[in-house]
Amino acid sequence: MGLMRSWIETANDPEGAFPLNNLPYGVFSVGDGDLRCGVAIGDRILDVTGLEAAGILRADADADVLDAPFWNDFMELGPAVWARFRDALQALLGEGADETTRDLCITYSVPMADAVMHMPFRVSEFTDFYAGRHHAFNVGSMFRDPANALPPNWLHIPIGYNGRASSVVVSGTDVRRPWGQLKSPDHDLPAFLPSRRFDLELEMGAIVGTASDGPISVDEAFDNIFGYVLLNDWSARDIQAWEYQPLGPFQAKATATTISPWIVTRAALEPFRCDTPEREFELLDHLKDRGPMLYDIDLAVALAPKGKPATTIARTNYREMYYSAAQQLAHHSTAGCPMRVGDLLGSGTISGPTKPERGSLLELSWGGKEPLTLDTGETRSFIEDGDTVTLTGAARGDGFTIGFGSCAGTVLPALDAPYKR
Amino acid sequence: MGLMRSWIETANDPEGAFPLNNLPYGVFSVGDGDLRCGVAIGDRILDVTGLEAAGILRADADADVLDAPFWNDFMELGPAVWARFRDALQALLGEGADETTRDLCITYSVPMADAVMHMPFRVSEFTDFYAGRHHAFNVGSMFRDPANALPPNWLHIPIGYNGRASSVVVSGTDVRRPWGQLKSPDHDLPAFLPSRRFDLELEMGAIVGTASDGPISVDEAFDNIFGYVLLNDWSARDIQAWEYQPLGPFQAKATATTISPWIVTRAALEPFRCDTPEREFELLDHLKDRGPMLYDIDLAVALAPKGKPATTIARTNYREMYYSAAQQLAHHSTAGCPMRVGDLLGSGTISGPTKPERGSLLELSWGGKEPLTLDTGETRSFIEDGDTVTLTGAARGDGFTIGFGSCAGTVLPALDAPYKR
Repeated sequence: MGLMRSWIETANDPEGAFPLNNLPYGVFSVGDGDLRCGVAIGDRILDVTGLEAAGILRADADADVLDAPFWNDFMELGPAVWARFRDALQALLGEGADETTRDLCITYSVPMADAVMHMPFRVSEFTDFYAGRHHAFNVGSMFRDPANALPPNWLHIPIGYNGRASSVVVSGTDVRRPWGQLKSPDHDLPAFLPSRRFDLELEMGAIVGTASDGPISVDEAFDNIFGYVLLNDWSARDIQAWEYQPLGPFQAKATATTISPWIVTRAALEPFRCDTPEREFELLDHLKDRGPMLYDIDLAVALAPKGKPATTIARTNYREMYYSAAQQLAHHSTAGCPMRVGDLLGSGTISGPTKPERGSLLELSWGGKEPLTLDTGETRSFIEDGDTVTLTGAARGDGFTIGFGSCAGTVLPALDAPYKR
Repeated sequence: MGLMRSWIETANDPEGAFPLNNLPYGVFSVGDGDLRCGVAIGDRILDVTGLEAAGILRADADADVLDAPFWNDFMELGPAVWARFRDALQALLGEGADETTRDLCITYSVPMADAVMHMPFRVSEFTDFYAGRHHAFNVGSMFRDPANALPPNWLHIPIGYNGRASSVVVSGTDVRRPWGQLKSPDHDLPAFLPSRRFDLELEMGAIVGTASDGPISVDEAFDNIFGYVLLNDWSARDIQAWEYQPLGPFQAKATATTISPWIVTRAALEPFRCDTPEREFELLDHLKDRGPMLYDIDLAVALAPKGKPATTIARTNYREMYYSAAQQLAHHSTAGCPMRVGDLLGSGTISGPTKPERGSLLELSWGGKEPLTLDTGETRSFIEDGDTVTLTGAARGDGFTIGFGSCAGTVLPALDAPYKR
């Protein structure tokens, strides 16, 4: 399948993020206007909240679902509606649309450059995994030893932990450097201080679009995923080191998790499906691969010191994951955990096998021992105040690109005094 | 303060759970009727959804908040409204009420025996702590050694991890024994099997009633807590043992967490405030005790095999906690984590210093090495199919009792085959 042509010319750029093949879902506003559900096409956003209210494009005949403003109500309608709605959008925006349709779509759309993006969906709960093998190997090598880098369970289950939905924010939101309890190796007692080892984690987020209420198979899990976003799981490594034994990361991961503003649907990514890597141990039946359920998506991390140009500090690919999101979701439900529409599953940090493919500063600077040199000549072991971190992602097809928009955040200095009373 | 007398005679029983001093908040239905917000008084439930709709008892002059049916919208109104509403209820139900008021309250109330209870609030997110010292010591002694039972951070921060809000259920809900990935010490590889070491955890749950958006002090945290419930954090010990390194418990805790149906407000518990235990290390300033913020609440666990009488297997007290819920909530917010109305914080398992005070079967049977003998003559190391576990709690005042209702669940056998496809 090649580029699907649109009458909106900017959507036909083979390097553009938002061709007719993509049609990702977001929430936008213009000026002081209301938040509205929108669909990206070329350099414009189609105002589907407006089209629904006008009776022109309805996902559900009886109830408004795009007025919320978030995509959860739409997701609730299920895969048959998702497919019909995508078809309807492709008819409106495809080359075959007549003049009246085109005029209507221009009326009900805005230039992307004029819009501010908001959270595209209400996060029900957030789970973060640790399912990239190179990342787990690097971290295990640093903190334990390379011979025993992976914990014994790692090759048998996608290790994950519950995160905090309330801290998920959309790209563009500033992130305040956290305070936390830290203990230096050379001190006997901990102290309460701003984090000194604040880091990024390059991840993909999978969004659950169909609820379940008991164990689901990998096949069912695949069908229940609505779409994907880029995800930066900001991590305070020094808080984590002190707190994480025995029950896992808590405040180290509670400051913020940033996602890209556009939900790229599973339908748009269908041409990019690929297999997980070869298995060292055969997975147990309930987690076995059921066809190609990962995706070939190029990913990059850029870091820009305040007021200076960005340096690309890592490039990798989503196909480096050891477990697919479908396997993670299946594992998540094994003990009967109800999964809900709007649940967000972070893939875990995505690193490739070589040094420039590492998806965190912890790995890139090897725990601070090998600081990176940026294009500006400055060095970085961890994030400094004023740094902007931007993740980007693109699936590259034959004559077209599926982009995600960027996932960016600027780190502000810690508060001088965190407590008012 | 002694018993506050009500004209509803059953509310004046010094051993009764629901005197005028208590007035806990729940959600109930009768027969095929709607779910409604209710207040327990003696052996009746006051239908405050009905009283609000009739304009007789309004928390907010302009908007219905008790029609949801859950107490979140009411909590959103804040502490001044909470206090006024409690005063209004005490006026309606106190001895001084006139005949007309009494008739009205009889009309807008039902016998508790006729009602089915539902989840009293929508759980925004669920966090479980590990903040009972005797429990942490017991578990650490069993899995590590008594000399190093507590992890190094334990006496400095209330260790916690994020749980799963979607799995929180109300008392009376059956709990299905989970399947999970397990590895026996005598096997090289894991297997997917029903849990064989399914356990209970006796806890209290604190409910956040005021949202916050950055670090909050222990004082602020205390003010932000709306009330308390009993909480049983069902735990699959064998799943936990295999999965929990390095990122903490996940599927071991995902099957269900049961809470009691009545939110006992902080106002009702005010006479029972008590101090946390003496400190071995002084806490850092941001976590320091700010007056007595724990509560003196007697707690008990009963276990009944299917069709047989219950045995009380443990008795302890909430005052055994090392950290108060206010300290837990303050710690939860240190890194800037937004906290929301409806967040539920599990205290962690509450065990006392002696064997009959242990709040889990893991501790009571010492990992299965010392099975308990029930009054029926049967023994238990962990929960067996058909067992009903019931938690109860009571704060005992001078001539009155503040009860919580019971927190009960029956464990059903694991599914024969968990997957349909």
